[in-house]
Amino acid sequence: MSSLAPSTESDALTLLRRHGERLHGYFVQIRARHDQAPARLVEAIQYSLLAGGKRLRPTLVLECCDACLGSRRDASPKATKSALAAAAAMEFIHTFSLVHDDLPAMDDDDLRRGRPTNHKMYGEAMAILAGDAMVTMAFEIVATDADPTVVPTLVRELAHASGPEGMIGGQVLDIDGEDQNLTLPQLQQVHRMKTGALLTASCRLGAIAAGANETNLTAVTEYGRHLGLAFQIIDDVLDVTSTPEQMGKATNKDAAKGKNTYPVLMGLDASKREAQHQLSLALDSVKSLGAAAEGLRNLAKFVVERDV
Amino acid sequence: MSSLAPSTESDALTLLRRHGERLHGYFVQIRARHDQAPARLVEAIQYSLLAGGKRLRPTLVLECCDACLGSRRDASPKATKSALAAAAAMEFIHTFSLVHDDLPAMDDDDLRRGRPTNHKMYGEAMAILAGDAMVTMAFEIVATDADPTVVPTLVRELAHASGPEGMIGGQVLDIDGEDQNLTLPQLQQVHRMKTGALLTASCRLGAIAAGANETNLTAVTEYGRHLGLAFQIIDDVLDVTSTPEQMGKATNKDAAKGKNTYPVLMGLDASKREAQHQLSLALDSVKSLGAAAEGLRNLAKFVVERDV
Repeated sequence: MSSLAPSTESDALTLLRRHGERLHGYFVQIRARHDQAPARLVEAIQYSLLAGGKRLRPTLVLECCDACLGSRRDASPKATKSALAAAAAMEFIHTFSLVHDDLPAMDDDDLRRGRPTNHKMYGEAMAILAGDAMVTMAFEIVATDADPTVVPTLVRELAHASGPEGMIGGQVLDIDGEDQNLTLPQLQQVHRMKTGALLTASCRLGAIAAGANETNLTAVTEYGRHLGLAFQIIDDVLDVTSTPEQMGKATNKDAAKGKNTYPVLMGLDASKREAQHQLSLALDSVKSLGAAAEGLRNLAKFVVERDV
Repeated sequence: MSSLAPSTESDALTLLRRHGERLHGYFVQIRARHDQAPARLVEAIQYSLLAGGKRLRPTLVLECCDACLGSRRDASPKATKSALAAAAAMEFIHTFSLVHDDLPAMDDDDLRRGRPTNHKMYGEAMAILAGDAMVTMAFEIVATDADPTVVPTLVRELAHASGPEGMIGGQVLDIDGEDQNLTLPQLQQVHRMKTGALLTASCRLGAIAAGANETNLTAVTEYGRHLGLAFQIIDDVLDVTSTPEQMGKATNKDAAKGKNTYPVLMGLDASKREAQHQLSLALDSVKSLGAAAEGLRNLAKFVVERDV
């Protein structure tokens, strides 16, 4: 059972479902553009892209765009279109990272979202290439569909958050840190890069698509940072407290791999308290956005209080 | 011994060296931007990026830009800067493809440009991540350094040429075609995607950076297509006729792997004639550009008549 108030949980789930459906329709359009590509490659990409993730990152893009647009929300088709492109690109990048992380040379996982991992279905070579293709497709989507005036900034943000100072760099640190005892600041650095960078960038992409001013951009950036940290703490906690059936992937594998996690470094209770603290900081960050940030508030609570 | 006229060969080599040096200076600048990234990741990237390739693709970007600028060449700093960014991005993408193609799950090569392949030096996980990072860095470079007005088109072209309809798609077809007998049109399709797409895009990126008109863009596109085909035919020929010492990588491996190649499908002599035919078509394509395309002519002859 979730500890969320029922209305907040259902609001967050409604939001995720609504944005998820928009995204799905857009994915169908994007797929139609790739009818000249090898069918098996497209199939491998779709297999992981449509595996039923929560769509948290694209939802953050779309909600941050809406929150920054405020009352201009229904009169800004260009901003909305740019945000949708950025949201899709973000999901392509996130999915690529899962496919490559699961590879035998990396985390060597057989199960993801309750189904065989990409390389278990299509072989290692195809999983590597499908992941590679998702990266180029992410940038192609933004360059093709977003408003040209925001394309340079969107591409730069997305690339930077995914690259050596962001997600990919974090994955390197994570692998290097296995079987070493990291300090709490070192662990936080890994998470800031590995998961935090992409979650923060999701928020920023939405604001940039909306043409947000500096104040609002800073607000959603701070929100994204605290949300990202809370998200990772909860992920570590769930790895300890959940069953594989609940998570749709192997659990308890952090400990088995000698991975550094919040529960290992600060205990389960203190980890949960820290997640709540980060949640309150995230909520504070978007106070200035008022009612337009209601969706962001529900999402943040959902991230911290979810049980899957 | 090369069969090239000495002056053409030395002109082409001078051009490759001159543009290669500019590129190298720019790579040093780019590296300095990544001092927050994990050192071992940056090292693995640099290892392959600075392994002494010919820099053919970036040279094509820069030369096509110059050819399209013509007499405006020295008065177009924005175009030149955009072309340099596109050239660097193209080399990042090309290098990423080599690193991933060499992986055990793909071609499983131990030697590249006379040195151990990336995964032999840094391990498989790092080679996968270094390759991934090169893709995101390529797009970050274009988005950061190119003239914002051409960024959307440059990103779209680069992404499309690298993705499922281009290089990555071609690699999928290539792997799928091993141990099958392809027809000549099927083989040409593999090459058009696997090597041709990136070589053609190199030419187009240069023209786009230059703000070329439709006629000139078409001219360099055709040039790139014929050059790409010629390049691959010669690559296949050299795999049969060269020693590993000359090539800096294993040779005769196409036959060992049951790969479809031009020499296998049409014989060595007919392959060489076809390469010459493609060369003459490439030269015809850029006739309209006059003296400004002298570098492109020398490069095309070099590509076809090189012995490494």
